[in-house]
Amino acid sequence: MELQDGGKVPYDLLAMATGTSAIVPNMPGVDLPGVFSLRNLEDAVHIKTWLREKNARRVVIIGGGFIGLEMSEALHSAGIATTIIHKDALPANRWDAALSAVMLEELQLSGVEFVAKAEAQAIEKGANAQLRVTTDKGAWEGDLVLLSIGVRPDARLAKSLGLNIGKTGAIAVNFSQQTSLENVYAAGDCCESFHKVSRRWVNIPLGDIANKQGRVAGRNIGGKPLTFDGIVGAQSFRLFNLECAATGLSEKEAVESGYSPVSNMTWGNAMAPPMGMSKIGMKLIADKSSGKLLGAQAVGVAGVVGRINTLSVALWAGLDLDQIGYLDLAYAPPFSAAWDIIHNAAQSLRRSI
Amino acid sequence: MELQDGGKVPYDLLAMATGTSAIVPNMPGVDLPGVFSLRNLEDAVHIKTWLREKNARRVVIIGGGFIGLEMSEALHSAGIATTIIHKDALPANRWDAALSAVMLEELQLSGVEFVAKAEAQAIEKGANAQLRVTTDKGAWEGDLVLLSIGVRPDARLAKSLGLNIGKTGAIAVNFSQQTSLENVYAAGDCCESFHKVSRRWVNIPLGDIANKQGRVAGRNIGGKPLTFDGIVGAQSFRLFNLECAATGLSEKEAVESGYSPVSNMTWGNAMAPPMGMSKIGMKLIADKSSGKLLGAQAVGVAGVVGRINTLSVALWAGLDLDQIGYLDLAYAPPFSAAWDIIHNAAQSLRRSI
Repeated sequence: MELQDGGKVPYDLLAMATGTSAIVPNMPGVDLPGVFSLRNLEDAVHIKTWLREKNARRVVIIGGGFIGLEMSEALHSAGIATTIIHKDALPANRWDAALSAVMLEELQLSGVEFVAKAEAQAIEKGANAQLRVTTDKGAWEGDLVLLSIGVRPDARLAKSLGLNIGKTGAIAVNFSQQTSLENVYAAGDCCESFHKVSRRWVNIPLGDIANKQGRVAGRNIGGKPLTFDGIVGAQSFRLFNLECAATGLSEKEAVESGYSPVSNMTWGNAMAPPMGMSKIGMKLIADKSSGKLLGAQAVGVAGVVGRINTLSVALWAGLDLDQIGYLDLAYAPPFSAAWDIIHNAAQSLRRSI
Repeated sequence: MELQDGGKVPYDLLAMATGTSAIVPNMPGVDLPGVFSLRNLEDAVHIKTWLREKNARRVVIIGGGFIGLEMSEALHSAGIATTIIHKDALPANRWDAALSAVMLEELQLSGVEFVAKAEAQAIEKGANAQLRVTTDKGAWEGDLVLLSIGVRPDARLAKSLGLNIGKTGAIAVNFSQQTSLENVYAAGDCCESFHKVSRRWVNIPLGDIANKQGRVAGRNIGGKPLTFDGIVGAQSFRLFNLECAATGLSEKEAVESGYSPVSNMTWGNAMAPPMGMSKIGMKLIADKSSGKLLGAQAVGVAGVVGRINTLSVALWAGLDLDQIGYLDLAYAPPFSAAWDIIHNAAQSLRRSI
């Protein structure tokens, strides 16, 4: 096989797991010592070393997606103050604004500074800390700056081999994790996955998907065929005391996939009221014409990830709101009311169609 | 309509929700003051009044099913010591012995006395407390005795009306909650439900099922037809720090329903190991010929009910082990490993077929 640069790689079979590259914003100072991205274990080791060597007391995080949020929690628990600079009004844009507002409240209660609607413009040496980040809303100093505005699939090697690249920019594969070349397989963040709800090929770089694809690729390479059915978009992160999780499509993705989404927001409790009050907010998105569930998002102190996983299986199996409104779930007062928030949300959304 | 006793009840339409009766063992002393069953709110009020008036310090519970176990926790948290007298070696017989052993350990760590393999023979006045329970393993005294050996559907009124009664002893209904008489509906613990896994009509007296059936009956009576698809046998209870949950069929029920069950027991963590160790034990039961999941049971400190609900939807949708082994679940280290115990358990059981 001839590479585009003229070099040759001799191989009988190639398995690619080239992952992602962190997106580095185009602004001065991103190459300064103390400016990091977080993409792999090596990055984490470098970050920890820098924090220790500089006796870091404050970190500026650029980007309030779930990696930035998780890092704010990790740094906070290590005794390091954090400022998150985010381009939008609320963190975690994938979630409904009402749920992201709960996350923002949790951040602020935990002492994390969140600078909303701010565009980072430059990083330079700091006066009272190692570095200073200038934005259109003012400047913030920190001993380390973390860039967490996103990642993109690393398809450079794939391109140089002439492999088909999908619309997402990730390597196109079939259900066996085989690329457009018969003897080249790809797995993980660098390649696409079939989304069972949108019925499109997507790139969602998450560790659990990568693990599954890796095993499927390995099985096929090893001669024990296995297909990877796909994903439904399940994801979660913890933010201090909050569980945050989502699955399926957002309304925007639903429209892009040809559905007519309707949605609602339901506030309920993780447990029966006499057992305490543990608020959960849950957004459901469904297709107006078929009544099928398309997506769900939830935030709360307890019982969130379990419910989103429950709904992930409903998405996997293509259940509609009528079925979800009457699902048999394991009721006991410490874990839910007799009608769970899942039932209430699904029935309420069904009535609105 | 003429009742069997000769009386007449004039009605155009009847909705029955006669619930269950507690099973009272056939032994001397069950009528003594201070001997209670727990079936409804009135029972709970009487129990609380007795405990307060007698300044109760110890309670003897006969029966170590989940009602007895929940009561031991409730009493313990009210500062009242409890002894559970149980006919088998381990509590909560529905769960696998390995999981019931975890419950027993939790009971003992919490200071609840568990008398195994003991048959209560008589209740009489106590010497150092209000009452004394004599068993074939010795005698235990307490200021209150709670009988929690089970309930049976209360179908007395239904029988007197000549309604069809199912093999379970509960009122037979159709998917609209209609009994064998067109204008008589039944809902709740007194009637049967269609079990989607066994495809048989069963009687599982649980509050969430009763709520659903009540709403379905009401909708049909009110002229807005709705059917109740059925149940999968999801149930849960908390035991001090443990979440205990199960869904679907036990192996015995699977055999009775015509399946050839295989099963395995998997021990894993509720979260990724670096986030702490929170042991979960999970038993899966599947059909050998089709690979379909038939049931699941789990016990652990966290993440149990959410996983059993996830598997309840898998049962609802009839998923097989191949699909369950690769379900897309919302992975983040505080909530699971990249391969969740659900994946590991399903793949392991699949390999064993």
